[in-house]
Parts: sequence; structure tokens; C-alpha cells
Amino acid sequence: MDTLVPYTPQQPKSRLGAILSGQERTAFARVMLEDVLNAVREAGGDPTVLTTERLRDLAVPQVVDERPLSPAVNAALDPPMAVVMADLALATRASLGRTFDVSADLGIVPGRGGGTNVLIVRDAAFSVDYHGNSLADHRAIAAEQDLDCREIDSFRLSTDIDEPVDLAEVLLHGTGRAPTWLREHGVRLQTSDGRVCVVRSDE
Amino acid sequence: MDTLVPYTPQQPKSRLGAILSGQERTAFARVMLEDVLNAVREAGGDPTVLTTERLRDLAVPQVVDERPLSPAVNAALDPPMAVVMADLALATRASLGRTFDVSADLGIVPGRGGGTNVLIVRDAAFSVDYHGNSLADHRAIAAEQDLDCREIDSFRLSTDIDEPVDLAEVLLHGTGRAPTWLREHGVRLQTSDGRVCVVRSDE
Repeated sequence: MDTLVPYTPQQPKSRLGAILSGQERTAFARVMLEDVLNAVREAGGDPTVLTTERLRDLAVPQVVDERPLSPAVNAALDPPMAVVMADLALATRASLGRTFDVSADLGIVPGRGGGTNVLIVRDAAFSVDYHGNSLADHRAIAAEQDLDCREIDSFRLSTDIDEPVDLAEVLLHGTGRAPTWLREHGVRLQTSDGRVCVVRSDE
Repeated sequence: MDTLVPYTPQQPKSRLGAILSGQERTAFARVMLEDVLNAVREAGGDPTVLTTERLRDLAVPQVVDERPLSPAVNAALDPPMAVVMADLALATRASLGRTFDVSADLGIVPGRGGGTNVLIVRDAAFSVDYHGNSLADHRAIAAEQDLDCREIDSFRLSTDIDEPVDLAEVLLHGTGRAPTWLREHGVRLQTSDGRVCVVRSDE
């Protein structure tokens, strides 16, 4: 499965600013990207990074497009093709493999909060619109084009890493380099009576 | 699959207090419980509600136990048995069916933030400990008892409904009565540039 992985190296992951510095966010975003690329390859995918700026030292084909996410993805989309977000740090061979296997015109793994984390596009009538509640928009585009649409139920792939609370999920469930990177940078779990959260201790 | 569904009718879902009154939270928790019971039955499960107080007008067997969650579940646990939380408002026949099919000694669907949302217990050596980071505790108990443990990857079942932001997921993905109840009570999605959230408008 040809797989686009969109990536923006400039000032990524700003909502992690309470835990990580700007330079650290750039480094962590790159670690997550590489975890995602590894998981895509392990699942039998053939990744291309769609980036706003050429990345050094990356042994994966790149397409450089400076435009915002939606026009850049639509220009590169050539079905059958998957589009996998670069911050899915919990992605594994099994979760992506189950998704690649979906044979509908359109497969969607929703992200939390109405996002779209993975698309499997098998019909060229589909185009993406990532702005706002993209899940609703993608459902609507599929309906307008009379496409058979299937949603895939995966915690791992629904968990995009945007906010400090999401880092707890990386520490609890990550299988790539991202959880190791976090631990090396002093980010650790803190358990209270409710959900687990993260704190940073650089001692 | 015999399935315990633990439930506390007294002052449930306090963290939804910013959106719902106390009386509404009690009503909404009951609606979610009934959605979960329906999904369990549709998946071929045979539910029993483990409750701290007998519930009226519920056509499902009940076990009343006033103790905290963990001792109450351990007293009622009789493998093979599933334990399914009562606030999994996104549960469906498919997501629970996939979970019931797991044949390992122990199946776990993690909840976000280190919780345990569903357990499939096939070995009587296992006991529950829901306090704190229960996922880590349940993994440790399984390892101590040398049990074969399998985690199931489901967004629907990993999403327990505790906080206002979780209500967005009910509106986006719920298939039972819970999303209808929320809409009838003026809870609706609001889309900003980031994740979707909910607001309440009682006009």
C-alpha cells in the first residue's frame, strides 16, 4: 500500500510547549515520524513523506509541498493510497495492517475530537479536507460521491499526540523509539486518583 | 460470555459537572449503562449489573455489593467472565464481539490514561485492582500469575466517558441512546481549530 505521511518540520507540536522546549518538540516530532514510518513498513506499506521542507538524513522518498495540508495531500493523492498522520506514536504493524486490509472505497480511522488520523483511499473521486471537524467532512465527501465508507476501530491509531496528556499514552503503550526518547528527557507518568498524567523531572 | 457491568448509581460522573447537573448526570449515567447492556447482549454476552444499590426498572440480573469496585468485582468474578465498564457509551456489537473472541487467559482493553475498560478473564488465578494506574497493575498481576495476556486495540472501548471533552466522542460516534439524550439536553459539538469540543445551549 503506497502511504503518504504528511509532516511539517517547522515549529511542530506547539501544544506540547508546557512539557518540551521548541527544540525538543522538533526532535520529538521527528522521532514520532520515524516510528510511524517503521510501523508503515512493517505493515507492508511503502511510505512517502509529504513535507513542507526537505528533511535531511531520511532514507524514505520525500515530496516537498509548501502548501497547507489539504491541498498538498490532494495533489499527491493517487489511489489506492493510504494517508497516515506522522504523530501516531502508538502505531504498530498489527493496527496499520488491519487498516490496510480494509477493502472499501474509503477507510477512515477517526482521531479523537473529530479528526482523521488514517485514510485508506481506493477511489479517485475522494478528496481530503482536514480543516476543522475533518471526520464529519470526510464522511460527507464520501456520501456525496456515493462511496462505500468503513471506519476502523483502533485506539492506537485514534491517538494522535498533540497535548501533554497524550504523552502518557506514549509511555503506556508506545513500542517504538518515542517512549524511550521521553524517558531520556525526564518525562514520566504520574498516577493520581483519576487518569494518569505526565510530569517532567530533569534531575 | 457472562459479563459483569459494575455500576454506582450514587452521584455518578462528577467530572461532567461543568455541563450537566447532578440529576442529569444520574440520568445520563443510566442511559449509558443501558446502551452498554444492549451492546453486551448484541455481542452475545449475558450481562449482570454489579451495583452498589438495587436499580429499579432494569430487566437485567443484579448483584448488590456496597463495597468499593475492586473487592466487589473480585467477589463476583467467576471465570470465564468479562468485566465491562458501564460508561463505555461507544461500545458496539462489533467492538465487544472482537473482545469476547480473545482466547488468552486474560484480555484487556485499556482505557485512556492507564485505566482498564474491559477485562476478559478466563483463569481464576487473576484478580482485579482498579485503583490508580490499573492497566499497569493488571499487567503485573497477569505476569505474576504467569498468565497469557492479550491487549485489544479498540478506540470505542478505550473511550470511557468521564469528562466534558469525552461527550464530543459520544456525539461523533455513539450508536445508542446516549447521543440522542445529549442532543435533547442541548449538548452539541463546537468546532474550533483544534479538536472538537462540546457546548450546551438550552434555548
